[in-house]
Amino acid sequence: MSTQAPPLLPPGVSASDFASALDELASGCTVLTSEEELAGFRDPFQFSTWEEYAASAVVMPETVEQVQEIVRIANRYGIPLWTHGRGMNTGYGGPAPRVDGSLIVSLRSMNKVLEIDEELAYAVVEPGVRWFDLYDAVRAGNHRLMVSIPDLGWGSVVGNFLENGATYLPVAQDMAAYCGMEVVLANGELLRTGMGAMANNRSWHVYKRSLGPTLDQLFMQSNMGIVTKLGVWLTPWPECYMPLWLKARNEDDLGPIVDTLRRLMLDRTIENVPQIWNAVAMASVISSRAPWYQGDDPMPDDVIDHMARELGIGRWTMRFAVYGDEAVVDHRFAKIKKEFERIPGVEVWGEKHAPEAMDTLEHPFDRVQAGVPNLGINQMTGWYGGEEGGHIGFSPVARLTGPDAVACRDLLRGLVEREARLDYAAVLIPTNSRSFIHVTMVIFDTKDEGQTRRAYDTAKLLVREAGKAGYGEYRAHLDFMDLAAEQYGFNDHAYMRFVETIKDAVDPNGILSPGKQGIWPRAMREARD
Amino acid sequence: MSTQAPPLLPPGVSASDFASALDELASGCTVLTSEEELAGFRDPFQFSTWEEYAASAVVMPETVEQVQEIVRIANRYGIPLWTHGRGMNTGYGGPAPRVDGSLIVSLRSMNKVLEIDEELAYAVVEPGVRWFDLYDAVRAGNHRLMVSIPDLGWGSVVGNFLENGATYLPVAQDMAAYCGMEVVLANGELLRTGMGAMANNRSWHVYKRSLGPTLDQLFMQSNMGIVTKLGVWLTPWPECYMPLWLKARNEDDLGPIVDTLRRLMLDRTIENVPQIWNAVAMASVISSRAPWYQGDDPMPDDVIDHMARELGIGRWTMRFAVYGDEAVVDHRFAKIKKEFERIPGVEVWGEKHAPEAMDTLEHPFDRVQAGVPNLGINQMTGWYGGEEGGHIGFSPVARLTGPDAVACRDLLRGLVEREARLDYAAVLIPTNSRSFIHVTMVIFDTKDEGQTRRAYDTAKLLVREAGKAGYGEYRAHLDFMDLAAEQYGFNDHAYMRFVETIKDAVDPNGILSPGKQGIWPRAMREARD
Repeated sequence: MSTQAPPLLPPGVSASDFASALDELASGCTVLTSEEELAGFRDPFQFSTWEEYAASAVVMPETVEQVQEIVRIANRYGIPLWTHGRGMNTGYGGPAPRVDGSLIVSLRSMNKVLEIDEELAYAVVEPGVRWFDLYDAVRAGNHRLMVSIPDLGWGSVVGNFLENGATYLPVAQDMAAYCGMEVVLANGELLRTGMGAMANNRSWHVYKRSLGPTLDQLFMQSNMGIVTKLGVWLTPWPECYMPLWLKARNEDDLGPIVDTLRRLMLDRTIENVPQIWNAVAMASVISSRAPWYQGDDPMPDDVIDHMARELGIGRWTMRFAVYGDEAVVDHRFAKIKKEFERIPGVEVWGEKHAPEAMDTLEHPFDRVQAGVPNLGINQMTGWYGGEEGGHIGFSPVARLTGPDAVACRDLLRGLVEREARLDYAAVLIPTNSRSFIHVTMVIFDTKDEGQTRRAYDTAKLLVREAGKAGYGEYRAHLDFMDLAAEQYGFNDHAYMRFVETIKDAVDPNGILSPGKQGIWPRAMREARD
Repeated sequence: MSTQAPPLLPPGVSASDFASALDELASGCTVLTSEEELAGFRDPFQFSTWEEYAASAVVMPETVEQVQEIVRIANRYGIPLWTHGRGMNTGYGGPAPRVDGSLIVSLRSMNKVLEIDEELAYAVVEPGVRWFDLYDAVRAGNHRLMVSIPDLGWGSVVGNFLENGATYLPVAQDMAAYCGMEVVLANGELLRTGMGAMANNRSWHVYKRSLGPTLDQLFMQSNMGIVTKLGVWLTPWPECYMPLWLKARNEDDLGPIVDTLRRLMLDRTIENVPQIWNAVAMASVISSRAPWYQGDDPMPDDVIDHMARELGIGRWTMRFAVYGDEAVVDHRFAKIKKEFERIPGVEVWGEKHAPEAMDTLEHPFDRVQAGVPNLGINQMTGWYGGEEGGHIGFSPVARLTGPDAVACRDLLRGLVEREARLDYAAVLIPTNSRSFIHVTMVIFDTKDEGQTRRAYDTAKLLVREAGKAGYGEYRAHLDFMDLAAEQYGFNDHAYMRFVETIKDAVDPNGILSPGKQGIWPRAMREARD
């Protein structure tokens, strides 16, 4: 890690040029440059004295035209930009830029819900709109619509989509609940995808493809443009909502649970995106480590068993939900209960609710699956460190079969416990009927530099070792974006070479988020290689 | 149209160079050059003496390595290639190339089903695999899996996906039933998308995204690469399959039908992709025009009503299906029947089947929605011309609301009847809960040059007029690809300029399918503009 002192400059930009650029930017937008202000734009969980991933300044546009102007100014001065919606992606580096001295383009002030269409069940939002804001707008308009949301409501709707973040309603399997975007390109021009490429076309946010290649996914997890509008598909209220719980006693129940789940997802008995939590992860939502174990070594199995019993949680706990006509919900619940309870000791239960009652539910899981944003599980990071806890997400993809889930679990649990000497906290997210994301929460005390360093190092070890075993990250933390991308080495990294060919063509000055997901513009590639 | 005599040469390539290139190609692959052989690679419905859209030769690789070698040879000699899987996309130009003298790369001999995974319900196919072949392979393996198929079984599975073609099972809403591709790039290199970019990753065909931008849709409806493998999601047999029919008496029932349908699709009571046929289109499946009307003008309303009554079809007929546990199917059918039959005169009916019986069903609609490939509706093109009928598909996208459907119908029916003096034959395909594709079948007698010319001209008129009204094509016939693309003019064609920037970067010699969907390489753009 470098130890460059603030005020930072963008790489290769002189102090006077940067001052001129900031003057130009400040004529239209709010610009932040003070040390105190910039402190809020760091990786929230890195140790306090670490200097890496620091911005030179932050600019906060309020309009699309201002975003275009920022891009033009950045091109003129050669300033690397780094964009976020809200920057609340805390387990992956938050708002911090990959390249020290980047100018952060914070889109937090572009926070308008531009449209809600109740009949066709979609909304159009700007990138600063939080899940809380979208939900509030839907409620304020008395629309009988649900929003498919992630676990924490404070993040950007657009940002979550752009990072392939999971949400949990049926409409969001395969992260597919978006439709139609507007993008500011690296040359400052405005592009609209899909039917939006026709100026007067009213199907922009209802049909997902273009005539010709569809570009939306080229702007996701990438640095090819700055997304300024996104269509988001909503869900009409069902007659009945039934959040469900599954509890399993044994660590090895994971295999049969996953096999049963796959069959029930493939036949659409379960249509939403479930989550399967191990005991440590689940305990971190409602407790902390200290009451159960004080050892420096990973929590032993008998302690986990004891803790799980006392907390009334399983070695594995699955949350999921069914939605629909009450008759269908009843049928599905009976079938689900019967299928899972074939596994000895497994219990499945739940309660039906009318849609009017969704926002009165108490448990954060019940609220999230009803599309009611909250911050209920945010205390998870306090597992080791109380208020000052942090986490790094390591999240590879695997096939949704029992043997695959067990193999992936064994590999990652072994590495976390053996190499990092940390507790293994895992949440498996089947984002469709055929695959799951194994979110490994590497939790640590951010006040403890040694433990924090070990956590960051562990994450990189996991990337490498999982890569050797054929498991790839679905998204990557700032600190190991390059390493995660490097694992995708088929045919001498043909994928990345193709992506970087496109990057050079559409952003020849390498202005937009250099290094994002391991994609570097030509001028900076040599330093990496 | 040009009148260049065969043998054609690729543009800008000398006869001796082309002969050398063909020699190199023929050392590894079958090469076709005779007039008789090339006759099978024309637009199947253009008038017999028209000379446009003719290839110089056809090369038929059998392996990925041969495709790579073909691309390298084409780069060396500057020969434009034009690729198809089976070339059976007859309403959009069939196997014919956009640029006269192109070398057709026919992938018909790459026809292996490489993998069928019953547990995770997917297959991996080469581009020459037909729907018939994939179905046969599933049956031969005794897999209890269904294939989501289009109406005609003779086409390429990969080709249909690459053109955003619709298929009809729930898994295929938004044409989303693909996962993971292998592509030969313009430089001859091999790329794999998604998890396939990691050599030993087993999640290639089960998880849809990449780490970094997801490229699959960049290779669809485009000319950025040649797809050599594709993962296709299959569907486990349901307990019960119930194909359904809806018949409506009045032309104006369309509005309420569409509004009811949208609600039932949004709440997932109807999960598959329905089709709504008007009377002329439906009649063309089971009859022809002559028995009902001999006038040169469009068939008048009273004749349509008479014909519909006699044939036992509606002014609108909807085909759709429900799948699942019998209890759920029963509930859904009762609900569907009740909701639609609120519309005076509308009837809904159907019959339940066990999956074992699916391939014994007789009606092509019942077979298609069960995933049993056939050619049952291929006689549609005989409406005017008997055996020699042709059709051009004009297929804009619209919002799935009653008023939008009626407005789109009024516009297109008016143009087809008033300008082309042809019967209006339409099939509305709601590929998701929020939009539909209005497939306008411009049917004509291919033996009648005047009528054929009028049909081709009409299609272009429709593109232009629909574009003015804000309706864009979801795919485009060879003969009006440029015109269809031109309608997407937002911000001075920012979409196309961006796509062509990518095209120039990844295919600098402009070898791959120049002109495809209006995307031209730099060297040929000036001629267009």
